[in-house]
Amino acid sequence: MHTPSADLARVRAAAPLVHNITNFVAMQTLANVLLAIGASPAMAHAREEAAEFAALASALTINIGTPSIDWLDAMGEAARAANRAGTPWVLDPVAVGATAFRRQAARRLASLGPRVIRGNASEIIALNAVIEDQDFLSRGGKGVDATDPTEHAEAAAQQLARTTGAVVAVTGPSDLVCDGEHIAIINNGHPLMPRVTALGCALTGVIGAFLGASAKPFEGTVAALAYYGLAGQKAAEQAQGPGSFAVHFLDVLSALDETTLDRESRISHRSCKH
Amino acid sequence: MHTPSADLARVRAAAPLVHNITNFVAMQTLANVLLAIGASPAMAHAREEAAEFAALASALTINIGTPSIDWLDAMGEAARAANRAGTPWVLDPVAVGATAFRRQAARRLASLGPRVIRGNASEIIALNAVIEDQDFLSRGGKGVDATDPTEHAEAAAQQLARTTGAVVAVTGPSDLVCDGEHIAIINNGHPLMPRVTALGCALTGVIGAFLGASAKPFEGTVAALAYYGLAGQKAAEQAQGPGSFAVHFLDVLSALDETTLDRESRISHRSCKH
Amino acid sequence: MHTPSADLARVRAAAPLVHNITNFVAMQTLANVLLAIGASPAMAHAREEAAEFAALASALTINIGTPSIDWLDAMGEAARAANRAGTPWVLDPVAVGATAFRRQAARRLASLGPRVIRGNASEIIALNAVIEDQDFLSRGGKGVDATDPTEHAEAAAQQLARTTGAVVAVTGPSDLVCDGEHIAIINNGHPLMPRVTALGCALTGVIGAFLGASAKPFEGTVAALAYYGLAGQKAAEQAQGPGSFAVHFLDVLSALDETTLDRESRISHRSCKH
Repeated sequence: MHTPSADLARVRAAAPLVHNITNFVAMQTLANVLLAIGASPAMAHAREEAAEFAALASALTINIGTPSIDWLDAMGEAARAANRAGTPWVLDPVAVGATAFRRQAARRLASLGPRVIRGNASEIIALNAVIEDQDFLSRGGKGVDATDPTEHAEAAAQQLARTTGAVVAVTGPSDLVCDGEHIAIINNGHPLMPRVTALGCALTGVIGAFLGASAKPFEGTVAALAYYGLAGQKAAEQAQGPGSFAVHFLDVLSALDETTLDRESRISHRSCKH
Repeated sequence: MHTPSADLARVRAAAPLVHNITNFVAMQTLANVLLAIGASPAMAHAREEAAEFAALASALTINIGTPSIDWLDAMGEAARAANRAGTPWVLDPVAVGATAFRRQAARRLASLGPRVIRGNASEIIALNAVIEDQDFLSRGGKGVDATDPTEHAEAAAQQLARTTGAVVAVTGPSDLVCDGEHIAIINNGHPLMPRVTALGCALTGVIGAFLGASAKPFEGTVAALAYYGLAGQKAAEQAQGPGSFAVHFLDVLSALDETTLDRESRISHRSCKH
Repeated sequence: MHTPSADLARVRAAAPLVHNITNFVAMQTLANVLLAIGASPAMAHAREEAAEFAALASALTINIGTPSIDWLDAMGEAARAANRAGTPWVLDPVAVGATAFRRQAARRLASLGPRVIRGNASEIIALNAVIEDQDFLSRGGKGVDATDPTEHAEAAAQQLARTTGAVVAVTGPSDLVCDGEHIAIINNGHPLMPRVTALGCALTGVIGAFLGASAKPFEGTVAALAYYGLAGQKAAEQAQGPGSFAVHFLDVLSALDETTLDRESRISHRSCKH
């Protein structure tokens, strides 16, 4: 049976270089999270070097949290370079429902073959709708925070996985991972996590690190989510609010032992409904 | 009588979406501060979506801390979109006295109708002088940190409020808020606050959140400053330096109860002198 | 004899304005570190104002961690403006070995006369090789983290110091400073330091602050490294992992007294070997 600790051990042993083209809010947190889990972060967004960096790295993550034309161009080049090099990459379609610019950007990036797509329920629903040309705007999503519960995104996640070929991770109070056939539900995590900015974006980097250490997309994503959520639970035990939570979270990510991870992961598996 | 807690309660209940076009140094702190007070932060700076985001949000904040031509264009479009949508917006003229580029940028933005302008004493004096075409350079301001005490900015704040129609907030060891007719002085805060980067910029976001939760510009700004300063005092009681202060500050912003806020706010009111 | 505390005292007394054109990951940490040591940070990257800011400041630091064409142009203009004003500036060639874009950028900046160049061993080896047209790619450096021990960089540091006229600082488990004739080895520091992102980049800012407070390039760099490393040691005594370490580090930077600094600095001096 696949245990999350096996993938975590590989990350800690391999220290994979993860190239991230992410948003301005998340960069520092993402870098600190990657260092805390034992990976090696790199950020590079210029068209002149994005492809070269992506080919050098063990994994690439792309996050459209603060997009601009130049950065989107570099994201596309980096994704294609990763594909050519056989390097796995993860797409994080932040606030894809908010503007036409993001919808177009996310649709284009999703078509380039990400190994994993991670978003909150509202983002996964919106991205799937954008690709399927549905009118997702009627759902009322407003910004970057999820307004839909995870379970509402199951059908969208399944369809998105089948359309794009990516493993789709819906993260929230509970997490759902779907490869189009199978579903895993992860019931780790803590309500303080969304009270700290960029922890979702940093999770995208963690998934990248797991893939970069040769985890399989579905199993590796499940392992990353269980590890991340459990670290959140442990950090919350010592926290007095979102500030101290963020500090403890990095400490716990670094220190969490593999036996505890396997014992306290709350993962269940089933098949897709349709 | 207006109590700060009434406005804070509205922020916590409404969780207003605050769109920020701010500087690179402040983005993460601003997002964490907004999450800690119960608001929902969003950052978006591309011309292709800035106006759309501003119209979607409950409030907009614009901060010229790390300006560039492209970003200034987006700031202008966002401000105009906010005006069209009736969305309040706040201007933070960081280091406006330092360069010709900033003077020009701040003057143009100030002319677009911000509901509130917040800066330290040196910035408010410089912005008023720029608008009045005075030679503010002789005052010797050099960077982003205030070199003038708050009370020296009173005349400038009053004139700036009357010229622009904005409520003007001068923050420092004591804070001054002026709408052109009335003045409030807030004597909360702690000397560790300016030892942590971006706490001034993040305060601009907090004012945005208060306006976004339907606070009146003058009363809401006063309430935001009292709340923020009191949180600084409480955080300092537990801090051993600027690092731990920043952590406790987020915890306190999140936990501070409304009774304490009203009891320990140090606000006094008077009319303008001229 | 030169003591590190003499330079630290000058920083704390003068509060030098340090202008930084640095990477997106490091900006907040660099600003907080500079505030903690008693300096005044400013960030400005637009071509329209970079030179004006550099001339205004007591020191300039340039870091190519997340480079782009526009920013590199501004870096060049700022460096030249600093030179014209006699303002010392520090170059941080982040991940210079990773891509052709960075190699070209770092070579050009190194030719503009930095007073100090700071990097990890892999970066100093790569930068020297780039300037000497050696094939440094065969060394296998991959990203931003050092893969070479400090002592392997001694010859490169010496050659780089002689070619560029800069003092070269190689930081890592032990630090080496070389002006082309003399070498200082600093044995302060702690293994948690590279587990927090941007602490190397922030150290570049600290060197800038020391130069900005009129420290001599060689002695000031040595003093800055000893102070920074010792603060890391003290912070680690209270840390439970990289998250809490980063918090304590800022507290210690702020609080570290000058007597302790001189007593616990581990600095040795010798001549260059060749």
